[in-house]
Amino acid sequence: MSVSQTGRLLRITTFGESHGPALGVVLDGVPPRLHLDLEAVQQELDLRRPGRSPLHSARAESDRVEALSGLFQGQTTGAPLCLLIRNEDSNSTDYAALRDLYRPGHADFTVQAKYGIRDWRGGGRASGRETAARVAAGAVARQLLAPLGVAVQGHVVELAGIPIRAVDLEAARSHPLRCGDPVMAQHMERAVEQARHDGDSVGGVVEVVARGVPAGWGDPVFGKLDALLAGALMSIGAVKGVEVGDGFALARMRGSEANDAMQPPDGFATNHAGGVLGGISSGQQIVLRCAVKPTPSIRHPQQSVDRAGQAATVSTGGRHDPCIAPRLVPVAEAMTCLVLADAWLGQRALVG
Amino acid sequence: MSVSQTGRLLRITTFGESHGPALGVVLDGVPPRLHLDLEAVQQELDLRRPGRSPLHSARAESDRVEALSGLFQGQTTGAPLCLLIRNEDSNSTDYAALRDLYRPGHADFTVQAKYGIRDWRGGGRASGRETAARVAAGAVARQLLAPLGVAVQGHVVELAGIPIRAVDLEAARSHPLRCGDPVMAQHMERAVEQARHDGDSVGGVVEVVARGVPAGWGDPVFGKLDALLAGALMSIGAVKGVEVGDGFALARMRGSEANDAMQPPDGFATNHAGGVLGGISSGQQIVLRCAVKPTPSIRHPQQSVDRAGQAATVSTGGRHDPCIAPRLVPVAEAMTCLVLADAWLGQRALVG
Amino acid sequence: MSVSQTGRLLRITTFGESHGPALGVVLDGVPPRLHLDLEAVQQELDLRRPGRSPLHSARAESDRVEALSGLFQGQTTGAPLCLLIRNEDSNSTDYAALRDLYRPGHADFTVQAKYGIRDWRGGGRASGRETAARVAAGAVARQLLAPLGVAVQGHVVELAGIPIRAVDLEAARSHPLRCGDPVMAQHMERAVEQARHDGDSVGGVVEVVARGVPAGWGDPVFGKLDALLAGALMSIGAVKGVEVGDGFALARMRGSEANDAMQPPDGFATNHAGGVLGGISSGQQIVLRCAVKPTPSIRHPQQSVDRAGQAATVSTGGRHDPCIAPRLVPVAEAMTCLVLADAWLGQRALVG
Amino acid sequence: MSVSQTGRLLRITTFGESHGPALGVVLDGVPPRLHLDLEAVQQELDLRRPGRSPLHSARAESDRVEALSGLFQGQTTGAPLCLLIRNEDSNSTDYAALRDLYRPGHADFTVQAKYGIRDWRGGGRASGRETAARVAAGAVARQLLAPLGVAVQGHVVELAGIPIRAVDLEAARSHPLRCGDPVMAQHMERAVEQARHDGDSVGGVVEVVARGVPAGWGDPVFGKLDALLAGALMSIGAVKGVEVGDGFALARMRGSEANDAMQPPDGFATNHAGGVLGGISSGQQIVLRCAVKPTPSIRHPQQSVDRAGQAATVSTGGRHDPCIAPRLVPVAEAMTCLVLADAWLGQRALVG
Repeated sequence: MSVSQTGRLLRITTFGESHGPALGVVLDGVPPRLHLDLEAVQQELDLRRPGRSPLHSARAESDRVEALSGLFQGQTTGAPLCLLIRNEDSNSTDYAALRDLYRPGHADFTVQAKYGIRDWRGGGRASGRETAARVAAGAVARQLLAPLGVAVQGHVVELAGIPIRAVDLEAARSHPLRCGDPVMAQHMERAVEQARHDGDSVGGVVEVVARGVPAGWGDPVFGKLDALLAGALMSIGAVKGVEVGDGFALARMRGSEANDAMQPPDGFATNHAGGVLGGISSGQQIVLRCAVKPTPSIRHPQQSVDRAGQAATVSTGGRHDPCIAPRLVPVAEAMTCLVLADAWLGQRALVG
Repeated sequence: MSVSQTGRLLRITTFGESHGPALGVVLDGVPPRLHLDLEAVQQELDLRRPGRSPLHSARAESDRVEALSGLFQGQTTGAPLCLLIRNEDSNSTDYAALRDLYRPGHADFTVQAKYGIRDWRGGGRASGRETAARVAAGAVARQLLAPLGVAVQGHVVELAGIPIRAVDLEAARSHPLRCGDPVMAQHMERAVEQARHDGDSVGGVVEVVARGVPAGWGDPVFGKLDALLAGALMSIGAVKGVEVGDGFALARMRGSEANDAMQPPDGFATNHAGGVLGGISSGQQIVLRCAVKPTPSIRHPQQSVDRAGQAATVSTGGRHDPCIAPRLVPVAEAMTCLVLADAWLGQRALVG
Repeated sequence: MSVSQTGRLLRITTFGESHGPALGVVLDGVPPRLHLDLEAVQQELDLRRPGRSPLHSARAESDRVEALSGLFQGQTTGAPLCLLIRNEDSNSTDYAALRDLYRPGHADFTVQAKYGIRDWRGGGRASGRETAARVAAGAVARQLLAPLGVAVQGHVVELAGIPIRAVDLEAARSHPLRCGDPVMAQHMERAVEQARHDGDSVGGVVEVVARGVPAGWGDPVFGKLDALLAGALMSIGAVKGVEVGDGFALARMRGSEANDAMQPPDGFATNHAGGVLGGISSGQQIVLRCAVKPTPSIRHPQQSVDRAGQAATVSTGGRHDPCIAPRLVPVAEAMTCLVLADAWLGQRALVG
Repeated sequence: MSVSQTGRLLRITTFGESHGPALGVVLDGVPPRLHLDLEAVQQELDLRRPGRSPLHSARAESDRVEALSGLFQGQTTGAPLCLLIRNEDSNSTDYAALRDLYRPGHADFTVQAKYGIRDWRGGGRASGRETAARVAAGAVARQLLAPLGVAVQGHVVELAGIPIRAVDLEAARSHPLRCGDPVMAQHMERAVEQARHDGDSVGGVVEVVARGVPAGWGDPVFGKLDALLAGALMSIGAVKGVEVGDGFALARMRGSEANDAMQPPDGFATNHAGGVLGGISSGQQIVLRCAVKPTPSIRHPQQSVDRAGQAATVSTGGRHDPCIAPRLVPVAEAMTCLVLADAWLGQRALVG
């Protein structure tokens, strides 16, 4: 709910700045006797890692995860699990020029306004690098969900205004743009390259699908499953919109179209609702989409102000992705896994 | 964070079912010495109340609010404030036919799947009537924010697929459809009437604007102001999508367009971000929009199943709005006020 | 964790003042399908009620409990359960003389210092009457625990410095002093009468025993079962000390004496630890004792100050028990039941 | 409130096992712009460290603290502060003999019963070593309190049944037994040596005094300052009893004696209440005492059982203090500092 912590029963606390010694997360409430596959955690981190393709930024981080606590002979013990990722390639001098400047679209101004102090090295706590800790935590949650038959997968469904026309989730997992439509992905790649060439950036839409969630997870009223998922996804830096199922399109439908008819014994003819009714999972696929704004760091000169309130022009050099939507896929998956695993424990507490 | 509670410092707990004895809310953490205007609370409830116009459902509830605790000589004392609303016009026999039927688009099936028991009288806890408690709580939060110069107002920006073309927020407050564009509102009314005539329903989009929020409210990482607002709005029954600022449209912009340029000393040229940067308020207007699905209760016959898993046809008679988006406006305002007042207290705790 | 709320999964929020319209509690997280016996709840309230014997204060309150939500056909639904108790015999004029005086041993001064406002009618929120809401909530928790074989019972083990020498828990439940040693109880009664005659008051020690708690409840580190129980008991108004098992006497033992030897297969030879090891229940009886200070309201004149900081003499007339330890027994039982039921749900969430 | 987290606004999460890679704590909610003195944090850790005198156990740990996040140019930033302490001298082979044995007075049996798995190396999470993370966190809280004039100091007031007769808090800070009465300390030392010689152990009583706390901190009802303090102290491994002010002695007083008379303008003649009235600080010294049981690990042979439920004899060799009360002093101070700093922020949130 608050600040750097989230979750109710599976509760995580993240810490760390872009250019500090390390990032990490403590997971409290992990059920005991899970054989934790740390290599699988590492693989999730690798999917988030920058520098994976020429399309991405060049910061070289190995992002090796280390488990500091909560494991005994490879199993969770029920004690808090701390996962640590040391920072390596943090060149703060790139950022020295920005120490007194507020980059448009960034949290520079608001962090200063809030705290009266700002770690300007690489965005400090407000850096996208913070999401590495989420991905590590989400990978643990994913392993809790797997034995229940729950699988969570995300993909890019739109980039630079170009929507997909076909979906192959398996292909999406290995594609640099995390896109499951190889044809449209080529158009997307060109748009990203063009943006990079122009010193500009583009946004996109990420969809996450959770399969295998049984009916009954999620708690009315304020703990509605979709409310928690929306809050979790919106807490990811660049996300500015979230929808469940048909989302905003539902606002334009009639009830007779929007209502998903039920079929004996407990199925549904359609899934406009996106797998959640009244805040409780219905047993259908849970479908979420989030709007990712274009990367705010661009070479293109922008009007801004400095800390003294004087006009200034900002051009962000350094290592920046012209599009972060693909790298956001594992983060959105992680947040979804965390909310779902927490909802599972909540339902187990309620009805045994 | 959980279940029927939300908020961190200004923490509310709601209770009550559609056809039980009463609805209510306990607000814990209300600062002392607020001269609470209970009449103003009542007015907010009246705006949410059904039966206000021929366009709305006919259930007659006076929704009189009673303060049971936390007040002394008209002022808050710092003790928990309980606000109670007795149910009056609850005719459960209307619903007896539905006791074993799952209405499409409703929580009937999921509530049964979750709890193994379901209060079928008027939707029980899953009824929209639950939002009365939110509105009462939000009206208190509004009074906490007012002396700080913070004002929150919502309106319908789209109904039945018909968008507004002009905005007059004052006019919106008194319009039955909560729409600030009198011209388009006429088209909307016709669409609602047509839906009612067809035994069907329509959805809409509600926008909430918060003015006067100073820079610095909201807490990275998981307590981002927009994440909390999105979660709060998505926790309202019929909401299926939430966006901040330009929301999904930002996914189609380039960074050079999406970034709001800053102007000396601490202003902005545009407000694509909707008043939140890095999860912290920027001092601009906070702009939120939520997608409201069409009312699921329709006269139009729908395919469904009963509790035994047998096919059944459902036609929801009774008193139902063909469009609940207008009545959702005070609810969305209330949730926004609650999140903002909580963020204010959080910032006060952090920096004094 | 906070203010007027406690519990993690079975979470309660209390509200109400001594002379306001009502007291109440909302229980969130109650598992569904509990056949709630409201009469049993009422009986617990009756045990706490003043005016039960000539030894007690004369305020006449029927303390009838009303369930406002969360029940359907006599069963819990999983929705929040609100229990309400209307105040009846609240004669504030008794207290008008005290509106500007700070009674020694009371929260009058500290409430004013904290909030800058004080509901002086009968102590307001700081009245012992607040505990009625706890007792109602605890009675629900007791019904959750009963099917698991967990029984919680308290009794007075010392009063006015007079310790018991024998224990009959059944007899204690019906004795006006909640004392299970009829011989020593006669001495206690005389001491209470003498204190009343002197315009003074006496304290006592209350013990609570929980039987049937299986091994494995409670969460290291900060959620230790005894830590939560100690915090819960210490949150009762007049309690100034709490001990588990042999408590302070353990500080004077040697390890070879204090350690409870284990016996095959999983039993213990003694129970110095009071049923908790490392914060986790051991399967033995859980034994808690709390020190109850003498009632601060006495007829005996006391030196004090008024709100202006001027010296004043206070003599508290009105209806006051010369000893509240017996009336604290059901409150201590209630808090114990609430913590245990919450620990049960926590363990269920953790291991299924 | 829960599991490995505590606090409301200054919220800590600890992690780590006795023989794992590291111990640590994340502090969330630390106000920004505190010039953190890491050397002072280290000094607190040194006071808790084993091996400081011949009276203590021989495990050699340098307990060097490292800050992983939340600092920028020596100041806190408002971001979570992670403090890490690597384990060095962890010789698990000492414990291999105990892998299937349950040591009396330890959490071995209950941890196994709860989780179905147990890290038997040095007690795992249930080791006293866990308190190092608390001390580190408490040292940060102490620095938050210092500018407010709040000072927290603990000392041993009784050891092996030997009470002090004089107090010199300054002397107590540097004495190996943390005792401020040099005469009685000699008797205590002899008792500890005798217990060691006998392969046995002794307990004691630790007092903590907080000076400079203004009136108004702490929240009725469940957030009472003394309730939170009692819960925090009882969460320390070996503590089995907690009292505030005169504690259990109050149960034997009359009201006319127990009530602290007030003196103009806002002072008190005595402090039987220990600085808390109605759960709110009164401006007087806050006085707490906790009962510390004798170290359960003793050489003396004890009857126990093994994991198969068979009878077994346990004699705990290895490096163990015959009395841990002195080493508990900095831990009790730390927990007190954490609760007080949190209460300060809570009051700031409430009234600005």
